[in-house]
Amino acid sequence: MSKFGFIERQTKGFINIDPLQTGGKLSEEAKKALVEWGDGYSVCDFCAGRLEEIKTPPIHDFIEALPDFLGCDIARITNGAREAKFAVMHALSKPNAWVVIDGNAHYTSYIAAERAGLNVAEVPNTGYPEFKIEPDRYAEVIEETKRKGDVVLAVLTYPDGNYGNLPNARHIAKICHDYDVPLLLNCAYAVGRMPVKMKEIGADFIVGSGHKSMASAGPIGVLGMREEYAGQLLRRSEKYKNKEVEFLGCTARGVTIMTLIASFPYVVERIKQWDKEVEKARWFSEKMEELGIVQLGDKPHNHDLMFFESERLYEISKKAKKGRYFLYRELKKRKIHGIKPGLTKHFKLSTYMVPKEQLEVVLNAFGEILEKYS
Amino acid sequence: MSKFGFIERQTKGFINIDPLQTGGKLSEEAKKALVEWGDGYSVCDFCAGRLEEIKTPPIHDFIEALPDFLGCDIARITNGAREAKFAVMHALSKPNAWVVIDGNAHYTSYIAAERAGLNVAEVPNTGYPEFKIEPDRYAEVIEETKRKGDVVLAVLTYPDGNYGNLPNARHIAKICHDYDVPLLLNCAYAVGRMPVKMKEIGADFIVGSGHKSMASAGPIGVLGMREEYAGQLLRRSEKYKNKEVEFLGCTARGVTIMTLIASFPYVVERIKQWDKEVEKARWFSEKMEELGIVQLGDKPHNHDLMFFESERLYEISKKAKKGRYFLYRELKKRKIHGIKPGLTKHFKLSTYMVPKEQLEVVLNAFGEILEKYS
Repeated sequence: MSKFGFIERQTKGFINIDPLQTGGKLSEEAKKALVEWGDGYSVCDFCAGRLEEIKTPPIHDFIEALPDFLGCDIARITNGAREAKFAVMHALSKPNAWVVIDGNAHYTSYIAAERAGLNVAEVPNTGYPEFKIEPDRYAEVIEETKRKGDVVLAVLTYPDGNYGNLPNARHIAKICHDYDVPLLLNCAYAVGRMPVKMKEIGADFIVGSGHKSMASAGPIGVLGMREEYAGQLLRRSEKYKNKEVEFLGCTARGVTIMTLIASFPYVVERIKQWDKEVEKARWFSEKMEELGIVQLGDKPHNHDLMFFESERLYEISKKAKKGRYFLYRELKKRKIHGIKPGLTKHFKLSTYMVPKEQLEVVLNAFGEILEKYS
Repeated sequence: MSKFGFIERQTKGFINIDPLQTGGKLSEEAKKALVEWGDGYSVCDFCAGRLEEIKTPPIHDFIEALPDFLGCDIARITNGAREAKFAVMHALSKPNAWVVIDGNAHYTSYIAAERAGLNVAEVPNTGYPEFKIEPDRYAEVIEETKRKGDVVLAVLTYPDGNYGNLPNARHIAKICHDYDVPLLLNCAYAVGRMPVKMKEIGADFIVGSGHKSMASAGPIGVLGMREEYAGQLLRRSEKYKNKEVEFLGCTARGVTIMTLIASFPYVVERIKQWDKEVEKARWFSEKMEELGIVQLGDKPHNHDLMFFESERLYEISKKAKKGRYFLYRELKKRKIHGIKPGLTKHFKLSTYMVPKEQLEVVLNAFGEILEKYS
């Protein structure tokens, strides 16, 4: 029992470049909301039966404000991006049907499809070194797949979580619609970081992650949709007429939605700084390349999430005392967190909201490490 | 935008007798955990790919400790009790199959079944004034239902969320097994409040709610099962061999699990005081009856959640200035929170962890209100 109770977080005071974490750091407002709304069912103080209709706190107003932010017709709160994808796939699923997914998709897109009983067809990327998703390949894969069965949905990861690539989503949406296939954008790394509007792109669903990119405690996600899919997605229970089946009545019924709401004004402001974030990412990428660490994926890069390749670090790992953990240990010593233990040849990181001075510390660290072991 | 940001909670400083909320108030340890682990994907600092295997913080150890607490073989964390019920039903579902549910079930048991494509057969309660679920009725309903199709699961709400009734769960488990039907106990109002062990009862699944009864921020739930169901429930993805499909890989991947862990030692201790909680509930019920407010359901009562009936308050509501909202307003004036606005004839409340002095304030309030309007 002594192992449980309050536990300290070990990465406090570290420079954090973990792609999973840079967009989910709480705003000051969200930190206050945590404490205020921490108790279990705190948001249910004045609930009349539907999360979406809670007036105090203003959950209703927030859910009404989301479509403008997401560029969609109707929005819902989910327990995360993966749960949003599953809700869509489950609602659209039919026996023997298919979903077409980009080859850079997050693993949860596959698993949501598996859980929803859908077969998966994959749109391959272009391979090394750019790993791009080309719109025309969607046409090919949809066409092939339609011969095997109904294609009920296409998914595009925008950007993907490995390379941070931003494909031509408009073109992909157009192709999907030419084949009468609705398109879901998985924007877990976009919504809350950069400007993105579902209908400007021409998609039918958009999914975002509160804990990944909206400065919120988790798990929580947002789901936007076109009105024409509301009948399927927002189907009400036969017995409980005010409850939506795909959301099991209520989803993020606690502190997670209050931190999402608390950070919302902050998030709306920070996406206006996106150009600067891209500029900073490109600067970081260049500096890494000067050290001989090559950035893969879109180039010049358009997102803070970047994938790097280093033959030199890999060579060092073969001889270093701690083996492939040497890089992790060297970075830890310098209070830099976020590159997975054991990785040396290929690793990803994020520069999002990390001050340039801190990124300079990271660059110097890589420089020192390379020098130390050469 | 000014509506969002940090929002104050309006029930601070109130005596809280809301059944949804009395068991979900954070422990001191959990309040500290909130602040420490508030950032989005904070628990993923040292994750190697599976929530259940995270060593730092000790999520792995916690999930290993849960079966002993729940009296089951294997446990998992879910995004809530309803999500746990859905996972079980979805994993066991077959076309045209049925689930047998007690007539006092929470609405989410029905909706989980609807979402999982299962038909629902209901075991009726005995009606006014006790609304009991009698074990033998399970036999009747299972027998009838088996003529229509496979019965893949039975559900018992233990206790239910309306009357706080605790049926003879052991007897019901035995009956279900006589018909080869596994039994799921929905213990959202039991696990974390009172001692309850799945295998002592003889059930096959047990579901608990962190935010409802385990002093945790939400949404979060626990699911316990017998090993023989692990194959279905913990099925791994075909493509991602370390990810469990029914849990979409990871569930409560954030601060919610850290508050659950923080409160765990506190919860383990507090359930030892259950007898005193029952005694206090019975005392409260007696005092309410002295005021002419009748407690329905099990009597003497065995749980802190109680349902009351008052003809007098109902009569007053017909003539009072604020109509049926008079009771809510009178209680609010006295800083008592938890009885739904608009209810007078029938309402529920919970005495769980509410100090006797505060319950005396509540009793005095009812006395004063009855006197004022008589």
